[in-house]
Amino acid sequence: MDYPKPVQNLIGQLARLPGIGKRSAERIALHLLKAGHDTNQSLADVILEADFKIHNCSRCGNYTETDPCDICQSPRRDQSILCVVEGPGDILSLERTGAFQGVYHALMGRISPLNGIGPERLRVAALVERVKKEKPAEVVLALGADVESEATAHYVGEQLKPLGTSVSRIALGLPAGSALEAADEVTLSRALEGRRKI
Amino acid sequence: MDYPKPVQNLIGQLARLPGIGKRSAERIALHLLKAGHDTNQSLADVILEADFKIHNCSRCGNYTETDPCDICQSPRRDQSILCVVEGPGDILSLERTGAFQGVYHALMGRISPLNGIGPERLRVAALVERVKKEKPAEVVLALGADVESEATAHYVGEQLKPLGTSVSRIALGLPAGSALEAADEVTLSRALEGRRKI
Repeated sequence: MDYPKPVQNLIGQLARLPGIGKRSAERIALHLLKAGHDTNQSLADVILEADFKIHNCSRCGNYTETDPCDICQSPRRDQSILCVVEGPGDILSLERTGAFQGVYHALMGRISPLNGIGPERLRVAALVERVKKEKPAEVVLALGADVESEATAHYVGEQLKPLGTSVSRIALGLPAGSALEAADEVTLSRALEGRRKI
Repeated sequence: MDYPKPVQNLIGQLARLPGIGKRSAERIALHLLKAGHDTNQSLADVILEADFKIHNCSRCGNYTETDPCDICQSPRRDQSILCVVEGPGDILSLERTGAFQGVYHALMGRISPLNGIGPERLRVAALVERVKKEKPAEVVLALGADVESEATAHYVGEQLKPLGTSVSRIALGLPAGSALEAADEVTLSRALEGRRKI
């Protein structure tokens, strides 16, 4: 005796969400069945509302209801510092730090030859055009520290160099709160390379 | 700069699901935004479909599309052994074991004075009526081992005794795979009490 078909379908869809295994999906499905119509309706509503109302900003790629997005439109943001990220999710991560007052450009992915993603699939050409036009004082590459992100950062750097803009990259080193002995060799050697006078 | 309102709403609703914290809710929301319309539509659809099509069996309380449910209707189930559980989720747990061939009766909760849930809020009267009418050879109480479930089992047992049916309770003891030293004192003393000749 298994779950009725509609419950199986619900569990199947939930289990596709990131971080949700088969057991969690079951638990959530049983919770929803117990929770009643209002809960289910409002969950379905918010999913569809976000799907319908949220788009990518045509300028920076950020998730937004308006176009251009609030960050692009804000007079309080420094339009002369352009931060390049892989995706709109990264913009939110950076915004949460409160440490960056410039504007963004999301590449919408990273170079990944294994998945057939070359630079032409990313918003690199749009970045080059934008830098030519807006002439920012600095472009900060806020890309990850894995192999594909490194390759992306290298490629983007090469494209921007001829334009004469200053290009920087966020620091690689020890994560906050980490003990030296907890760091792997690559992290540690990069932290050494990146040492700064104090 | 925070998430656009529809994204905040989505995260808020997701974070109410069991086992989903704020960070997981964010991760799932960003996944859905990235996944595109078809994924979102089909997730909303399965939620509403399960909500609409699934009901509680009027006889045993199991989740079902039909009424009575497949278990109640099955000629292969032993109608003379009645297993009492707290909720329909428990029926699925027991079904997964494949160890029980009888039928069920879900109480739809357990006695919980702190939450104002007395026996009159549960399907105890319906159970008593059913036992009077169907006269099962045995009623198995498959309730949990926490205080509230224990109290529920005690109360239900008292109600059934005068009816002359044999009432049993599932065994309390060491969980499968557990070392003796890993068991707490209560579990161990119950395992001792429940010892059986081999």
